[in-house]
Amino acid sequence: MTVVKSPLAEPARKTVGEALQGALVDLIDLSLLAKQVHWNVIGPRFRSVHLQLDEVVDSARLASDTVAERASAISVTPDGRAGTVAKTSGIDTVTDGWVKDAEVVEIMVAALDACITRMRERIQTTADPDPVTQDILIGITADLEKFHWMFQAENV
Amino acid sequence: MTVVKSPLAEPARKTVGEALQGALVDLIDLSLLAKQVHWNVIGPRFRSVHLQLDEVVDSARLASDTVAERASAISVTPDGRAGTVAKTSGIDTVTDGWVKDAEVVEIMVAALDACITRMRERIQTTADPDPVTQDILIGITADLEKFHWMFQAENV
Amino acid sequence: MTVVKSPLAEPARKTVGEALQGALVDLIDLSLLAKQVHWNVIGPRFRSVHLQLDEVVDSARLASDTVAERASAISVTPDGRAGTVAKTSGIDTVTDGWVKDAEVVEIMVAALDACITRMRERIQTTADPDPVTQDILIGITADLEKFHWMFQAENV
Amino acid sequence: MTVVKSPLAEPARKTVGEALQGALVDLIDLSLLAKQVHWNVIGPRFRSVHLQLDEVVDSARLASDTVAERASAISVTPDGRAGTVAKTSGIDTVTDGWVKDAEVVEIMVAALDACITRMRERIQTTADPDPVTQDILIGITADLEKFHWMFQAENV
Amino acid sequence: MTVVKSPLAEPARKTVGEALQGALVDLIDLSLLAKQVHWNVIGPRFRSVHLQLDEVVDSARLASDTVAERASAISVTPDGRAGTVAKTSGIDTVTDGWVKDAEVVEIMVAALDACITRMRERIQTTADPDPVTQDILIGITADLEKFHWMFQAENV
Amino acid sequence: MTVVKSPLAEPARKTVGEALQGALVDLIDLSLLAKQVHWNVIGPRFRSVHLQLDEVVDSARLASDTVAERASAISVTPDGRAGTVAKTSGIDTVTDGWVKDAEVVEIMVAALDACITRMRERIQTTADPDPVTQDILIGITADLEKFHWMFQAENV
Amino acid sequence: MTVVKSPLAEPARKTVGEALQGALVDLIDLSLLAKQVHWNVIGPRFRSVHLQLDEVVDSARLASDTVAERASAISVTPDGRAGTVAKTSGIDTVTDGWVKDAEVVEIMVAALDACITRMRERIQTTADPDPVTQDILIGITADLEKFHWMFQAENV
Amino acid sequence: MTVVKSPLAEPARKTVGEALQGALVDLIDLSLLAKQVHWNVIGPRFRSVHLQLDEVVDSARLASDTVAERASAISVTPDGRAGTVAKTSGIDTVTDGWVKDAEVVEIMVAALDACITRMRERIQTTADPDPVTQDILIGITADLEKFHWMFQAENV
Amino acid sequence: MTVVKSPLAEPARKTVGEALQGALVDLIDLSLLAKQVHWNVIGPRFRSVHLQLDEVVDSARLASDTVAERASAISVTPDGRAGTVAKTSGIDTVTDGWVKDAEVVEIMVAALDACITRMRERIQTTADPDPVTQDILIGITADLEKFHWMFQAENV
Amino acid sequence: MTVVKSPLAEPARKTVGEALQGALVDLIDLSLLAKQVHWNVIGPRFRSVHLQLDEVVDSARLASDTVAERASAISVTPDGRAGTVAKTSGIDTVTDGWVKDAEVVEIMVAALDACITRMRERIQTTADPDPVTQDILIGITADLEKFHWMFQAENV
Amino acid sequence: MTVVKSPLAEPARKTVGEALQGALVDLIDLSLLAKQVHWNVIGPRFRSVHLQLDEVVDSARLASDTVAERASAISVTPDGRAGTVAKTSGIDTVTDGWVKDAEVVEIMVAALDACITRMRERIQTTADPDPVTQDILIGITADLEKFHWMFQAENV
Amino acid sequence: MTVVKSPLAEPARKTVGEALQGALVDLIDLSLLAKQVHWNVIGPRFRSVHLQLDEVVDSARLASDTVAERASAISVTPDGRAGTVAKTSGIDTVTDGWVKDAEVVEIMVAALDACITRMRERIQTTADPDPVTQDILIGITADLEKFHWMFQAENV
Repeated sequence: MTVVKSPLAEPARKTVGEALQGALVDLIDLSLLAKQVHWNVIGPRFRSVHLQLDEVVDSARLASDTVAERASAISVTPDGRAGTVAKTSGIDTVTDGWVKDAEVVEIMVAALDACITRMRERIQTTADPDPVTQDILIGITADLEKFHWMFQAENV
Repeated sequence: MTVVKSPLAEPARKTVGEALQGALVDLIDLSLLAKQVHWNVIGPRFRSVHLQLDEVVDSARLASDTVAERASAISVTPDGRAGTVAKTSGIDTVTDGWVKDAEVVEIMVAALDACITRMRERIQTTADPDPVTQDILIGITADLEKFHWMFQAENV
Repeated sequence: MTVVKSPLAEPARKTVGEALQGALVDLIDLSLLAKQVHWNVIGPRFRSVHLQLDEVVDSARLASDTVAERASAISVTPDGRAGTVAKTSGIDTVTDGWVKDAEVVEIMVAALDACITRMRERIQTTADPDPVTQDILIGITADLEKFHWMFQAENV
Repeated sequence: MTVVKSPLAEPARKTVGEALQGALVDLIDLSLLAKQVHWNVIGPRFRSVHLQLDEVVDSARLASDTVAERASAISVTPDGRAGTVAKTSGIDTVTDGWVKDAEVVEIMVAALDACITRMRERIQTTADPDPVTQDILIGITADLEKFHWMFQAENV
Repeated sequence: MTVVKSPLAEPARKTVGEALQGALVDLIDLSLLAKQVHWNVIGPRFRSVHLQLDEVVDSARLASDTVAERASAISVTPDGRAGTVAKTSGIDTVTDGWVKDAEVVEIMVAALDACITRMRERIQTTADPDPVTQDILIGITADLEKFHWMFQAENV
Repeated sequence: MTVVKSPLAEPARKTVGEALQGALVDLIDLSLLAKQVHWNVIGPRFRSVHLQLDEVVDSARLASDTVAERASAISVTPDGRAGTVAKTSGIDTVTDGWVKDAEVVEIMVAALDACITRMRERIQTTADPDPVTQDILIGITADLEKFHWMFQAENV
Repeated sequence: MTVVKSPLAEPARKTVGEALQGALVDLIDLSLLAKQVHWNVIGPRFRSVHLQLDEVVDSARLASDTVAERASAISVTPDGRAGTVAKTSGIDTVTDGWVKDAEVVEIMVAALDACITRMRERIQTTADPDPVTQDILIGITADLEKFHWMFQAENV
Repeated sequence: MTVVKSPLAEPARKTVGEALQGALVDLIDLSLLAKQVHWNVIGPRFRSVHLQLDEVVDSARLASDTVAERASAISVTPDGRAGTVAKTSGIDTVTDGWVKDAEVVEIMVAALDACITRMRERIQTTADPDPVTQDILIGITADLEKFHWMFQAENV
Repeated sequence: MTVVKSPLAEPARKTVGEALQGALVDLIDLSLLAKQVHWNVIGPRFRSVHLQLDEVVDSARLASDTVAERASAISVTPDGRAGTVAKTSGIDTVTDGWVKDAEVVEIMVAALDACITRMRERIQTTADPDPVTQDILIGITADLEKFHWMFQAENV
Repeated sequence: MTVVKSPLAEPARKTVGEALQGALVDLIDLSLLAKQVHWNVIGPRFRSVHLQLDEVVDSARLASDTVAERASAISVTPDGRAGTVAKTSGIDTVTDGWVKDAEVVEIMVAALDACITRMRERIQTTADPDPVTQDILIGITADLEKFHWMFQAENV
Repeated sequence: MTVVKSPLAEPARKTVGEALQGALVDLIDLSLLAKQVHWNVIGPRFRSVHLQLDEVVDSARLASDTVAERASAISVTPDGRAGTVAKTSGIDTVTDGWVKDAEVVEIMVAALDACITRMRERIQTTADPDPVTQDILIGITADLEKFHWMFQAENV
Repeated sequence: MTVVKSPLAEPARKTVGEALQGALVDLIDLSLLAKQVHWNVIGPRFRSVHLQLDEVVDSARLASDTVAERASAISVTPDGRAGTVAKTSGIDTVTDGWVKDAEVVEIMVAALDACITRMRERIQTTADPDPVTQDILIGITADLEKFHWMFQAENV
């Protein structure tokens, strides 16, 4: 049964679908990771980092919703289940328990770095088959690179 | 190193901490599950169910944050990482791909049912050691049971 | 046909259901009574009492909705029809026509008094079978007792 | 004692007063009926109908307040007590318990039908004695007829 | 020079124009009078009456603007200058200096009474020549009569 | 199949339905025309006229929705399709391309003039069969005549 | 009877009271004048001037309220009645009927000029006896001089 | 007379202008069509589809304004008159009268399908001559494809 | 250690610092006193006075914050501790327990009177050494004198 | 004279009244202390701590109002006067003058610690005599313990 | 020291950095120029142009912030100092003193023209090395070209 | 040509005009400087300082607009062009590139110090010739001195 007729022809639909599914998993994991350290951060910069992390969470949640609904729109069923995220995310996990503020900042720089590298590949991959998806990924990457700069700037 | 001095004595802290950690994992998984079917639901009731699921997501996200920060407040480090959620959640997962609206409603009834049963046990467990935590869990359960009724009412 | 599966076992469901149905009727009648004197009050304190009564109306309407939806959530069908309210309310009615402001204040003190006495009994009754319902009734009682104090304070 | 000097001469005041009192009772009963089925509706269209009914409640509550205050303004004391509503309403009551969504829609069509018929008579009756009251009733009837169409449209 | 082409034929334009000009002057004077006693009221009900008067001011200012722009729309130039208001208003003036609260209420009842009597005549006069203007005057009269009731109700 | 039971008896329904269908087409065309010159206006008064036209668009869109839903409410199916508007509108079209600001003002005066004349006829026609529809048309005409005055006032 | 005990000793109270009473009358008259030309302005700049005048009205109404309440606060009863304004205002009146936009601008420049000259004298007069009143007059003058510049700037 | 100097050289201006004019007509027609079925839809899903269609209307109206103003910005005069829309739209019209909800959903899927196919061609056409216009069309297409998915998802 | 370099030279800094510290203590005490009678007022004017007192509280809290931060800005450390307020406030305390409404009004008149007298001295004292501080004190005094008038006006 | 009839019998009223009076004094003192260090904090974390302290102030002010009005509602007159706070607060005072940021954090941890210990005792004390008061104290304690964790987390 | 790790490889980082620095200077200068003529414009269109210029200022300020933060995000330090702007801006300066409205419009057309030409070059330059930056510049150019059209349209 | 008639006589106009022009340049440069370091700040306090600087930018931009429009109001043409700012500002520039957070704080303390010294001279200079301008400068200085304290407080 074809539920949704894709605006993309088959090979394009598959390529773009994989890019979107990869982005979805990375963004959900980014939001879970940022919440994890939002709750467990300690140190003199606690309040500043705690608030900053919620901005990442809000941004990643919004982006994951946009990406998943874009997948549906091209007739690719998005998979954002906990098990799928745990297995296929491109972001390293973090250890349990309290984490010092400076370490949190390093964790976020590394996580954003991983996301950005993969997002930039997806921007390349989707350019030809679907400029609409590419435009969505470009906008999300701009936000990720802005957070990336900010965490690095306070890591000096 | 004792980072945070708990307002609870040791056995109480442990009991309440386990209740909160269990609640945290269930609520995160509930939010991920509700988003998953929010994106993949199909059928004549698509729009109504799609919107209703986002109310569950908003409620579960807010509750998970409250629960995790309550854990920190009693000196228990919350664990909401993707791997932990995938391994320890009390909610059954869902299969990949499009899901018919009536089936989505059934999935949500079952998921809320599982959450509620466990939450009601936690309300019993925390009553003596920490009425402050108990009050938080009571408020969250009221919301879960309201969603539970609503999905059942439309499942007739 | 069981439409909604109750989170409460049978004797608890019945006890809590009766408490909620009683609260529902009292709160609807309180909102109708407060509107009745809101429209018919006269005297130098007209404007102050007229505005104050609408705060009672808003609060009672909101509470009646919460209570009725709680009943549905535990699989008890709420009954808020005009006839049921007229027959089973715990609040005395008021005579038709204009009412002097001081008399309105006395009427409200008496009506709130009746509601509060019954609500406090319901708080006792529901404590064991359903702390979730009890918590809702506690919150409503706090508001009723606040209005009760205010009308008494201006009745000196 | 004449509390409020009416802007209308005596026979007009009486005619218009009766129209307003009749409208008041119908509108209060409509709001109670709509809440009753708002809480007790079941079936696949639960959420849609549940939300739609609250729009009727809001509209009927606002209209009943306007009508009652208009009565006071022409020196007719409005009577919106539970007993008066139960005895004199022009709307049929509904049976207790869960009600299927399609049946709820039929109940609302019938209730609005009854209100509209009586409102249109009141528009005729008040035209000469008081165009100000007539204008208020015209506005309320427009809203009732809009709801009437909508419930019929979904009843096909 | 005909600046604005009236949607009304000549005799109608003149009749309606006079009604609107009369209403304009009364409404401006009502707003000035209400402000005058808003500033000069004294007595135990000071705060209540002070706030109530500003509601009259807001309503009268809005109504005067609507009425004046309606005049322009039918090609009648409105005249709301201080001198014109002082000379042609239908409302009695008030003495200078502090005024007791009960006296303020009486002054407002009398002023609203005068406005309403004239407004009701204008509703009659404009019915045939211009139902659009009549509808505007009906709406304004409804508000004036509501204030009229309220001041009387607190004057008992 | 009778989908919606009309509150009006047959001849009235037909008369009022024609008035509403005529009003609908005129109002949609007015909104399209105002947008057309909103985009194509040039001259020193560009910005002022450009902004003013969007107020006409907002008002005409809102009015067309009210009128169409009123038609549905009396069981007359409204027809607002592009072809119907193009064929049956009472407003003259405008030539393609840039239009000087003074000319835009003249175009709007003429378009509003045509709408108003027809609306005033509809107010007469609907008075007896349906005062509810008449009241809606009166309100819309008041707004059209206000815009009519304003464009004329700046056309001097 | 001394109703309000002034924070100022007697000669100061009298001097400051006269300044405030003068300011009150000028500001009320300014608001009436601005409304008068707001309704009667014609010409290509109609819309721009029409909107600008309402900013003057809002500002003058707010300022008149501040000034009158300041008078009451120093135990001077303010007099803002229509007759007092007509007799004692420092602003020239305007002729009845339509007024061309450029002429409206000139009228406003002249009216503001008259207000400002008198306000600056009051700033001098109140400096010693009451810096609190002076500060209020300084703030009002800043706004008047801003409007004064703007009307002049568009009068070139 | 060259009113607006285009930022594009001539052949580019012409190509991009045609793309924008085509998009404008499609989007206006989409908004008229969606309103037409918004008013005439019937069936159990009436309320859900009725509300959903207004989201399409809002989106299409906003997009049509953006597209038309973009045309002006590159010195191409947009043409959104009723006649032009009726003659050149790429969307099939709909029959008059009530339309069943399931049929409405099919109509919208087909209309959006037609719009999307043409929009994707315009994205190709404008890529080289004007990436600024292309970016606008990409954003609009993303929204259309989202609506397209949603109507299909509820059509299963 | 000089933490903050004052913009004022030494004798000025000391004089202004004392004025600000005195104002701070009076304003905090005023806010505590107003809350105390806000909670303990009784009598027919309960509601009116209860609400009015919260306006004093809001105003005094805001003013105390402004004054304390102004002290810091000129390098004077503000002291608003409970003990300091209890010892150095210029306002008389009030007896414990319920207080009749008329008495509350008298208490507020006396408290504001004391504050105003001292504020006016501070306005004199700070004029030369620091017009910036003086301007802040002038603004606060204007508010205090407005409350002073209002409580006196209702004390007649 | 019994002003307010308590919903509690006498021994319960006394026990609960003492708990509320104790909570009131602690919360007022907490708000004064937090403002004191809000103004006097220095060091690299100045801005972060300065903002965080105002969140404590807002929370403590709101809680003190709730607690005091709850006391009135059970017929216990609350005492929140400066002298009472200075004498009976359970929080240690702070020295005058600038305070380093790290020291401010320690002061807040200690102050919150003292409040929480006493609040938890009051939760025990009020459980039987008045679950309504207990529920209020539980909510306030949850907030205090959240601040307690946050200040500790940044004190590492 | 590498503060921020760029997501771009070296030659790309340099090319894109120069584009962003150039855009930053142009946008800051555009905001200063628009403010300059916002303050100095005179003539009959004063108010319209004065308001329109603030929309340019808001847009240019927002764009300059986006561009500068994008530079930081790719590890290029932005330079927006007054001296740098004065020396390197691509926009012609304006003479001191009052400027007639028509001349202001011409100045803005020329300034926007210069910005747009350079922005379109930057869109070309950045396409390959960084589509993320290109997308930002495309969005800004769309806004500039919209303003460009509007000022030209009113310059006819 | 005298465009604007100044409310000040000639020598006063010149003195006050110079004060305003000096203030304008300083405030624009302050806003540019604060943005420059807002973009280039690095170090652990990055986020806190980054946000704080935008508050300075908002305040300085608002103040510069007030000051420039005040100049126009007294018939002095303000000059806020990039070149003028670069040449005549009283604030030292900053070096290009990343700046450590502690250094940014020092830069801001120095810049605010320079502004404040000059502003306090302008307050003296304008006192006699124009208390209206003086009052504006006093308000701006209060804000600058508040920022001055805050940056110093975090520089310890």
